[in-house]
Amino acid sequence: MAVTLLALFKRPEGGADAMDEFMRRYRAEHLPLISLVPGLRSTVVEPVSGHFAGDDIVLATRMEFDDKAALDEGMASDEMRAAGRNLREIAPGMLTLVALDEAAE
Amino acid sequence: MAVTLLALFKRPEGGADAMDEFMRRYRAEHLPLISLVPGLRSTVVEPVSGHFAGDDIVLATRMEFDDKAALDEGMASDEMRAAGRNLREIAPGMLTLVALDEAAE
Repeated sequence: MAVTLLALFKRPEGGADAMDEFMRRYRAEHLPLISLVPGLRSTVVEPVSGHFAGDDIVLATRMEFDDKAALDEGMASDEMRAAGRNLREIAPGMLTLVALDEAAE
Repeated sequence: MAVTLLALFKRPEGGADAMDEFMRRYRAEHLPLISLVPGLRSTVVEPVSGHFAGDDIVLATRMEFDDKAALDEGMASDEMRAAGRNLREIAPGMLTLVALDEAAE
């Protein structure tokens, strides 16, 4: 069963300029690093367009792997470590990262 | 363009029993109410199976609408209000709810 890695980002401090800079570096630096992770099948970047309740999340990114073994291998890779180092620089304190098992209702 | 309503739930207080009770009532009470919302095209419930960073989220649910007008209509409906009342009872303080614009990379 496919496993999704879901990255959620809270709004950066520093207003609209900080938000623009985060999105610019996320696309210019982070996504190219993520694309190198072994076993990654697809990446879908979903900017938040409306907020109704709870935390001020600005971006959700879904990264799909074939199964849990592929996810574990990807998470342990040098490529993921490099992508993680980049995120700690461009998105300090903003990230929530979880794995999801998909189950359509 | 399709618009996704993303509901994220933090872990309830009260340990494993509270978590089981939340999931039981979410499926038994909340999902049937959500299914009545006008304009809702699909619902995908994704339990968190692994945690790597940030907030302790336990569940992500994706609800898809045809476009922003359909989402707005659904959010303003009596059926969504009833679903929201149910959530405030079964998941107090746990919910983050945002709309996402999908953009594959």
